[in-house]
Amino acid sequence: MKKLKFIIYLTIFTSITTLAFSETTVSPEINFIFNTLLFLLAGLFVMFMAAGFCMLESGLVTSKSVAVICAKNIGLFSIAGIMFWAMGYNLAYGIPEGGFIGTFSSWSDSSKLEIGYSDGSDWFFQMVFCATTASIVSGTMAERVKLWPFFLFTAILTGIIYPIQMGWVWGGGWLAEKGFSDFAGSTLVHSCGGSAALAGVILLGSRLGRFKNGYIKPMKPFAASSIPLATLGVFILWMGWFGFNGGSQLAMGTLDDSISVSTIFINTNLAACGGVLIAAAITRLVWGKTDVVQMLNGAIAGLVSITAGPDTPSPIQAILIGGVGGVIVVYGTHLLSKFKIDDVVGAIPAHLFAGIWGTLIVPFTNTEVSFLSQFIGIIFINIFVFLNSYVVWAAMKKTIGIRLSAKAEKTGTDIAEVGVIAYSIRD
Amino acid sequence: MKKLKFIIYLTIFTSITTLAFSETTVSPEINFIFNTLLFLLAGLFVMFMAAGFCMLESGLVTSKSVAVICAKNIGLFSIAGIMFWAMGYNLAYGIPEGGFIGTFSSWSDSSKLEIGYSDGSDWFFQMVFCATTASIVSGTMAERVKLWPFFLFTAILTGIIYPIQMGWVWGGGWLAEKGFSDFAGSTLVHSCGGSAALAGVILLGSRLGRFKNGYIKPMKPFAASSIPLATLGVFILWMGWFGFNGGSQLAMGTLDDSISVSTIFINTNLAACGGVLIAAAITRLVWGKTDVVQMLNGAIAGLVSITAGPDTPSPIQAILIGGVGGVIVVYGTHLLSKFKIDDVVGAIPAHLFAGIWGTLIVPFTNTEVSFLSQFIGIIFINIFVFLNSYVVWAAMKKTIGIRLSAKAEKTGTDIAEVGVIAYSIRD
Amino acid sequence: MKKLKFIIYLTIFTSITTLAFSETTVSPEINFIFNTLLFLLAGLFVMFMAAGFCMLESGLVTSKSVAVICAKNIGLFSIAGIMFWAMGYNLAYGIPEGGFIGTFSSWSDSSKLEIGYSDGSDWFFQMVFCATTASIVSGTMAERVKLWPFFLFTAILTGIIYPIQMGWVWGGGWLAEKGFSDFAGSTLVHSCGGSAALAGVILLGSRLGRFKNGYIKPMKPFAASSIPLATLGVFILWMGWFGFNGGSQLAMGTLDDSISVSTIFINTNLAACGGVLIAAAITRLVWGKTDVVQMLNGAIAGLVSITAGPDTPSPIQAILIGGVGGVIVVYGTHLLSKFKIDDVVGAIPAHLFAGIWGTLIVPFTNTEVSFLSQFIGIIFINIFVFLNSYVVWAAMKKTIGIRLSAKAEKTGTDIAEVGVIAYSIRD
Repeated sequence: MKKLKFIIYLTIFTSITTLAFSETTVSPEINFIFNTLLFLLAGLFVMFMAAGFCMLESGLVTSKSVAVICAKNIGLFSIAGIMFWAMGYNLAYGIPEGGFIGTFSSWSDSSKLEIGYSDGSDWFFQMVFCATTASIVSGTMAERVKLWPFFLFTAILTGIIYPIQMGWVWGGGWLAEKGFSDFAGSTLVHSCGGSAALAGVILLGSRLGRFKNGYIKPMKPFAASSIPLATLGVFILWMGWFGFNGGSQLAMGTLDDSISVSTIFINTNLAACGGVLIAAAITRLVWGKTDVVQMLNGAIAGLVSITAGPDTPSPIQAILIGGVGGVIVVYGTHLLSKFKIDDVVGAIPAHLFAGIWGTLIVPFTNTEVSFLSQFIGIIFINIFVFLNSYVVWAAMKKTIGIRLSAKAEKTGTDIAEVGVIAYSIRD
Repeated sequence: MKKLKFIIYLTIFTSITTLAFSETTVSPEINFIFNTLLFLLAGLFVMFMAAGFCMLESGLVTSKSVAVICAKNIGLFSIAGIMFWAMGYNLAYGIPEGGFIGTFSSWSDSSKLEIGYSDGSDWFFQMVFCATTASIVSGTMAERVKLWPFFLFTAILTGIIYPIQMGWVWGGGWLAEKGFSDFAGSTLVHSCGGSAALAGVILLGSRLGRFKNGYIKPMKPFAASSIPLATLGVFILWMGWFGFNGGSQLAMGTLDDSISVSTIFINTNLAACGGVLIAAAITRLVWGKTDVVQMLNGAIAGLVSITAGPDTPSPIQAILIGGVGGVIVVYGTHLLSKFKIDDVVGAIPAHLFAGIWGTLIVPFTNTEVSFLSQFIGIIFINIFVFLNSYVVWAAMKKTIGIRLSAKAEKTGTDIAEVGVIAYSIRD
Repeated sequence: MKKLKFIIYLTIFTSITTLAFSETTVSPEINFIFNTLLFLLAGLFVMFMAAGFCMLESGLVTSKSVAVICAKNIGLFSIAGIMFWAMGYNLAYGIPEGGFIGTFSSWSDSSKLEIGYSDGSDWFFQMVFCATTASIVSGTMAERVKLWPFFLFTAILTGIIYPIQMGWVWGGGWLAEKGFSDFAGSTLVHSCGGSAALAGVILLGSRLGRFKNGYIKPMKPFAASSIPLATLGVFILWMGWFGFNGGSQLAMGTLDDSISVSTIFINTNLAACGGVLIAAAITRLVWGKTDVVQMLNGAIAGLVSITAGPDTPSPIQAILIGGVGGVIVVYGTHLLSKFKIDDVVGAIPAHLFAGIWGTLIVPFTNTEVSFLSQFIGIIFINIFVFLNSYVVWAAMKKTIGIRLSAKAEKTGTDIAEVGVIAYSIRD
């Protein structure tokens, strides 16, 4: 009888223990679903960043070059989608440990419970990052670059250049081995896009009449076509950035992951706040007017700055990191003008310069990362992207040409390239 | 002692087995929450497609008919929301097995764990599909249709016509029994909207002066009011389509469902990419200019084409299906012009024609579906929707009138109907 | 042998029971993840409402005051983000039970499994509500308020005024003890913003020439700059409102919570539908034209009306509650004009008046709430916000000034404050 009692107690105890244990864990299948959901949802918000870039650029270029911006942005997103499937993904992830370059084979789904997420959802998430890189290039070269050479460059950037350097870090390549850390892509996405744009714009040259009398405040004929569309673009980017940084946690199926994603949301937001307010304050104090375009670029610079390490800073550190981003974008814009580099929308200061800053500052809040490895990564990636982009743009310049005729530029790229007027509101 | 040992081993073994089993399953409640979450979130993105249609149409019509487009789009979404609650949902789902028509009773929530999702979330998801159908009609008839007759038609379409044919398939009606397959609604939503628009536009007639000298490239006074707004609209639709197709998996609480949703995301995206690039290439090669409006419609046509079966194609098949959609929209637009049918935004080629293509091609990637059943479904649904819409539009034409006066059309529908100017930017 | 059999049966039975039990519950960790996911996702959609307000206001003001609206909206969102971190959150939640005011200490994360959600995700969700309140103020005072005094007021509103009154209810303060119920903030957010705007606009005065000949229908020079942007803004707000109201369920990790969120989605949508259609019908029947701007404000008023209690009404009740909101916004706009209060975008009728209505009507569908407690809450909160806002605006008026010079107002706030033209589309 005593034995039976013992057995019954044992059974009950085991049952409760089992239950308790099953209550405090997340089963692999549920974890799989949460992770997949994170990739798909975050990816969806990042996908919408393509619309954000399109609106920002449409709003900031002059009204006779807006429809081409629209064609470029929907076109580049389509090209990125196909190229990243055809080769990009495998080039980035088919990389041998510590290696330099992956395979060229086309992507195929191999979802399994053990992986912890649906392969397809990861592909989607990575694809929209690749497309974001291409979006960055578009604005800098606006108003005089030819449409189809731009598309060709986009195909090479999203199919080859971006994936190779991305694989160096997120694909477990040599820079990952060196300890280089770039959480969501201050360098891998934003500086990469900025370096590609810089290479292109140097070969392309500035718009006609842009630097006639040295640097002048943007004015007609270089006035922004629509400030509200540009602002909408930045709000869309800001929203998308929660997916960009939050999704880069790569997991949502545990307590710790969900807490980390929350921290990332807060830091992402505070960095953007810092960037906006610093840009507003500087332009008001130094130039007398609160420059709304610099506030918009301040938001982006703040967001780019926090992207390399959004999980480790405290709130005050996030505000500071983003705030410095705001300083960088304001003075970076002036610096570029001094060198007579005509970056129409300010993408180089906002993405390349702030991306360098954000990546460099990671060890300040993350003790596991060294300044040296960050420095190495920044140098190698930017040189790699710049040189390869330069070669591609130069080859196209020699052959098919990359710049519209002076006549077409004066008439406006919209009439020349897509044959429509972007705003017909005077009927 | 040996027995006791055995018992202890047995208990431990059972405990581990129990735990292992509980780890690899999703409990009904968690499954319920995931499914409900999918319906609500996907529905939310589809809801936002109403804004996408509104921007696309606002951007593509001439500037004196934009405010009415805004009134129509926010009005139709409101009408659809109320009509689908008052009768549509029950008409679609209160259908006896294999039957033709449901009950007219008003919807009431009956959420239970056994159903596997919250009834309310499903209602929301289905409602936004119904509203999407109504959105499609709006653009075709722009610039000359009367506002309130359009609202009356919307009430009949969303309360009666759409739900009846939708119930034939998704409500388990006679077409479902025949094996007709339309995963997310290439026919049930997009062709349905397109057929309703076609019936209306035939009775309405073309805009004054539209076909004076045969078909001419869109030009003043038929120039698009804002290409960037139209582009924004397409990006919003593209984003919403992930909810549209992804949510149509109807479940997210298992490993397989989450993998399937991922596949759907990829195929949806690749089809849109195909549609954009084919439309860009054709217009560039054939007409010399890269037609940005056709790129936008190419995206939509690609998306509509994949909607009937986004879960089964391989990536390359998805690109092809969407690419053919791009061909269809470009040449479909010209075909309509030849017949002097004045579809202001190209909704008939993008939604009706591409919808037929997408539905027909399902057996190509899904061996469980036959071409015959697809053909039957396409024919019956489009004839049903076209005839009923024709009768309603004709009845209104005879009585209250559906077309504005020539004077009002010349002044612009905005002044005539809503009494404001859409863009007042010359102060 | 019999004993052994019994033991084996017992073990199997226990195992199945354990399993069955674990299947019908959600473990604390999974619950934690679902709740955190709800806060983050809903917060993300509410965050995007900042873009909605920006577009609505940009579209409704005249074209020479649009760029300042953009600067104000991106600036206020940034200020709210920092101020709510620096003091707002603790002021709202660091309140002793039944008390009046919290601590001023800065927020710090203390996420634990027992709390049931990530603290950071809750902070993010509450922050975007605070920012929404500030957004409401912006539109009313457009076209003549100085930018930086507006920013200073925003800092005080989001850092002190909003959090104190919010803590009275959601922080467990004295109004919560009194039984005042405001589910998602008809009063705490919308009336609060509206009262702050009312105080400001009384001290600011109307635009030059606005009430020259008594009230007149909006016309040049007070024509809306872009109806489609305003409409886009409302669609964005409508979408965001699902996050606003749905997220206010504060939990998504149980069957009942997920059903409740679904109900909230449906009622939120139906109330907006009611508001739109009633505003359309009234303006058409009474003034002859279907006023699209009133339809937009009708949507907002419908949404504000349902916000105090979106979980308890039946669908028909939700339509009625929102519909009355539509009546209120149309006649409220005229009432304000009679008192020569110049609310540029109609934020006071849509947010303050409809907010009062929505809060008052809660007991109609929720028997646990009394009309008296609702009345007390409405009175005290609106007086508190109005008086404090009045003091702040008055103090600024005496010192730094809150109104631009007549010359700057005539030239346009854009040139005066931010030095750009919002729409440059005549090149």
